[in-house]
Amino acid sequence: MGKNIKTTAMIAVSLIILTACGSSNLTSHKSAQAKKISNSNTPVSDPRAHLNQTPTPMKVNRIGLHEVKVEMTAQITDIEIAKDDFYKAWTFNGQAPGPVIVVDQGDKIDFTLKNMDPTYPHSMDMHAVHSAPSKNFINVMPNQSGSFSYTADNQGVFMYHCGTKPVLEHIANGMHGMIIAKPKGGYPTDSQVNREYIVIQNEWYKYDSMDDMTNGKPKYVVFSTKALSSRQMNTNGTVGALVNHPLLAKVGDRVRFYVLNVGPNEVSSFHIVGTLFDDVYLDGNPYNHLKGMQTVMLPASGGAVVEFTLTQEGSYPFVTHQFNDATKGANGVIKVTKNGKDDGSVIMAH
Amino acid sequence: MGKNIKTTAMIAVSLIILTACGSSNLTSHKSAQAKKISNSNTPVSDPRAHLNQTPTPMKVNRIGLHEVKVEMTAQITDIEIAKDDFYKAWTFNGQAPGPVIVVDQGDKIDFTLKNMDPTYPHSMDMHAVHSAPSKNFINVMPNQSGSFSYTADNQGVFMYHCGTKPVLEHIANGMHGMIIAKPKGGYPTDSQVNREYIVIQNEWYKYDSMDDMTNGKPKYVVFSTKALSSRQMNTNGTVGALVNHPLLAKVGDRVRFYVLNVGPNEVSSFHIVGTLFDDVYLDGNPYNHLKGMQTVMLPASGGAVVEFTLTQEGSYPFVTHQFNDATKGANGVIKVTKNGKDDGSVIMAH
Amino acid sequence: MGKNIKTTAMIAVSLIILTACGSSNLTSHKSAQAKKISNSNTPVSDPRAHLNQTPTPMKVNRIGLHEVKVEMTAQITDIEIAKDDFYKAWTFNGQAPGPVIVVDQGDKIDFTLKNMDPTYPHSMDMHAVHSAPSKNFINVMPNQSGSFSYTADNQGVFMYHCGTKPVLEHIANGMHGMIIAKPKGGYPTDSQVNREYIVIQNEWYKYDSMDDMTNGKPKYVVFSTKALSSRQMNTNGTVGALVNHPLLAKVGDRVRFYVLNVGPNEVSSFHIVGTLFDDVYLDGNPYNHLKGMQTVMLPASGGAVVEFTLTQEGSYPFVTHQFNDATKGANGVIKVTKNGKDDGSVIMAH
Repeated sequence: MGKNIKTTAMIAVSLIILTACGSSNLTSHKSAQAKKISNSNTPVSDPRAHLNQTPTPMKVNRIGLHEVKVEMTAQITDIEIAKDDFYKAWTFNGQAPGPVIVVDQGDKIDFTLKNMDPTYPHSMDMHAVHSAPSKNFINVMPNQSGSFSYTADNQGVFMYHCGTKPVLEHIANGMHGMIIAKPKGGYPTDSQVNREYIVIQNEWYKYDSMDDMTNGKPKYVVFSTKALSSRQMNTNGTVGALVNHPLLAKVGDRVRFYVLNVGPNEVSSFHIVGTLFDDVYLDGNPYNHLKGMQTVMLPASGGAVVEFTLTQEGSYPFVTHQFNDATKGANGVIKVTKNGKDDGSVIMAH
Repeated sequence: MGKNIKTTAMIAVSLIILTACGSSNLTSHKSAQAKKISNSNTPVSDPRAHLNQTPTPMKVNRIGLHEVKVEMTAQITDIEIAKDDFYKAWTFNGQAPGPVIVVDQGDKIDFTLKNMDPTYPHSMDMHAVHSAPSKNFINVMPNQSGSFSYTADNQGVFMYHCGTKPVLEHIANGMHGMIIAKPKGGYPTDSQVNREYIVIQNEWYKYDSMDDMTNGKPKYVVFSTKALSSRQMNTNGTVGALVNHPLLAKVGDRVRFYVLNVGPNEVSSFHIVGTLFDDVYLDGNPYNHLKGMQTVMLPASGGAVVEFTLTQEGSYPFVTHQFNDATKGANGVIKVTKNGKDDGSVIMAH
Repeated sequence: MGKNIKTTAMIAVSLIILTACGSSNLTSHKSAQAKKISNSNTPVSDPRAHLNQTPTPMKVNRIGLHEVKVEMTAQITDIEIAKDDFYKAWTFNGQAPGPVIVVDQGDKIDFTLKNMDPTYPHSMDMHAVHSAPSKNFINVMPNQSGSFSYTADNQGVFMYHCGTKPVLEHIANGMHGMIIAKPKGGYPTDSQVNREYIVIQNEWYKYDSMDDMTNGKPKYVVFSTKALSSRQMNTNGTVGALVNHPLLAKVGDRVRFYVLNVGPNEVSSFHIVGTLFDDVYLDGNPYNHLKGMQTVMLPASGGAVVEFTLTQEGSYPFVTHQFNDATKGANGVIKVTKNGKDDGSVIMAH
């Protein structure tokens, strides 16, 4: 397993493309049939009012031993954020959270943002890199493309998001995601890990309401997963997504989550019921090592690698233990079976 | 002292039983005389409306070198959460927080929950163990008992709580507490500790209001302590409990708190005035060691072992430094005297 | 540089006096001309209603190798908390946050508080020291002085604040600041640091409204800086202060922030755009070392030393990534130029 882990980055990159092309799991695809779009406060004259752009696959190509080309879109796409509740989201590639970017620590990233939004500028702020924001995280105008280069010189689990003002509005409307920069030296526990998942927490507010985003309470707080292999699914930040489609594991597995709280406002008390985090690496840096944690404190834009063992068959809910947020949707389930496949058994959620 | 510490678990277990039998400090005992019960929104037809079940002592028996039998109740008991403000709490054993469970790391726990609530199912989710929630944290129906076994394979300071849906309601109504799994190897600072206390933070909301629990602000945020020895007291989560009945220490003592924030919603910025935490073990794991901290960040369902020295006679308030919560009751006092006994001197609180 | 760092404490102390005497950067100085004072709910009969006491320089004198004399005032001074929005703040020395105190770990502090407030008692609670609050953090009555001695036996970045009840009101009205106790052994990264800044986060609420402070949302959340050398500025907690007057750095600099969140209520997710924290020392203690962090979780009254490298010319915003708070003002900018001086270029903020 240790060796597999170390080569995951490159494999993941190619698989993501395949997955994105197939993308049968993307809830947003269904949204073309959406009847109730909760964007009543978008002016009729806004060219985006009836826009629902088909998700565009992210393109990731390794063009050198330490160089990766990444092409993403900013686009307006309907996302089902709860059963029958659609949100005309501002997205990266028609997903919210956007697709996960996986690179190796030290990779140069040649990044292009194609802004398909006819109205607003958008941009890309990557937490994984050292780069002058005033040069490389700048606005790309509507219907324009912008290209930027920087190096993912840090290792770990980082947030990316639109950095266009007001940043709160752009993040809260859906423009956020995760970039993983795989540590050069790996994690000390790499050889023990049997399977890996991405879990991202985000909030949804009353549609595009800066008032609510600034002073209100989230309408939903949700978890998503993003595919790291062709057998894994992508979900959008939708209430119940990871309960109705639980993550799978085999009895005895040590599972790794790359977990990230993109906020925009709430902190997260990340917890899995029925197990503990044997090992935690804050922001995914092997140096920031905690052990035996019941709950990991994630700031807004805080990440972690958490590893845990599932000792018995059954279903294991995970939540933010800030239970008002869990009640609003921030819960998911890991289903543990004999062979690691879904056996159709009834699951238990929180 | 080092040797005493290492044997505390077993002693604590037996002493808790004695304390619980005597339990003269349990505020809930006084509640039989309560006139104003703030459960106006409980339907009259609810058989629990006039229920105020006498606290039942928790039973803890060591039945093997590495095996402990624990019997607890789920019951409806009036708790005085502020002066003359009684709450018909959903409790473990008639206390809120429930009694502290102390075991050794590695102990098998044979756990029985007797559900005395005539109306609702309840359950037990222990953060200290590896166990399939769908098998061992399941509902025990009204007037039934359920027995479950699992091993406290982790070391530290953990939360337990009712995991029955909606979990937010069960926790917020009082069904939470602390389980300590004493580290096999002890803490590196064991030999320096002169006395130990339990401190738990929890919130109270408008009576049984899911609206308020989900989107409102807590009415009170409070601290409790639970007895670790016969000379110590149990208190419920009551405004002023640990101000009116301060914890005691002797000048020069190094004191250890096992501290836990059970939420359900708020994070805690735990701080003691007039001293610093020489040593902090996050979630009570000796590996997660911080030093010289003024304030410890506790997620919802986050614990810690914190140790500090009290260099002068006087009173030392402790708070969550999120002062809106401290203002709502989350403060207590450590009274430091020449001989470690209460000298009747006036204390200073926040 | 390593040697410079180690002697900063004493130099800083003397320079602060000079700075405070000149104090041309203190926004509060302009407030004499303030027209709109937002203290409409102060009763007219309150002798403080028309009070706007000129900021009094803090006095810091080293009187021994390990002994420092510090004299501060509690006073009522108008602070411009946002453009044209003045707050009749309760302050230390006419600043909010108050002036930064820099001592060496182990220094005895002979502290005097002169209470110039004609109405209310005030006090001083220093998180850096071991001392009985009931003896040494006690109230100083209006128009009185109080003197107290204690030793800054801990190392790091700590909060000080008025500890008079209700503490929430005293902190929220402006009585907070930072004390740095320079580690005896220094930080392992001292020799790499090119420049240092102080950054403090605090909230402002509706004027002196305990209701709002306890159950409301902050009106503003702001950053300030305090001078560590004569070339640096002091600012008050004012929306835009650190955007309009960005902190400066040279391309390639490793910069150290002494950062502190004084609350009183919010936690902070401290983040700098375009870089990462190479090294983080929680509460400023060299033992509490994290690496490669995108965001640092600060509890209410939590501090940190954070170090980061700025690799390109340009402007680097910093925020709490709890973006509702950032939207209310908690953002600043580091301007990076070829020579580390302000070149007049346009900056980019969040």
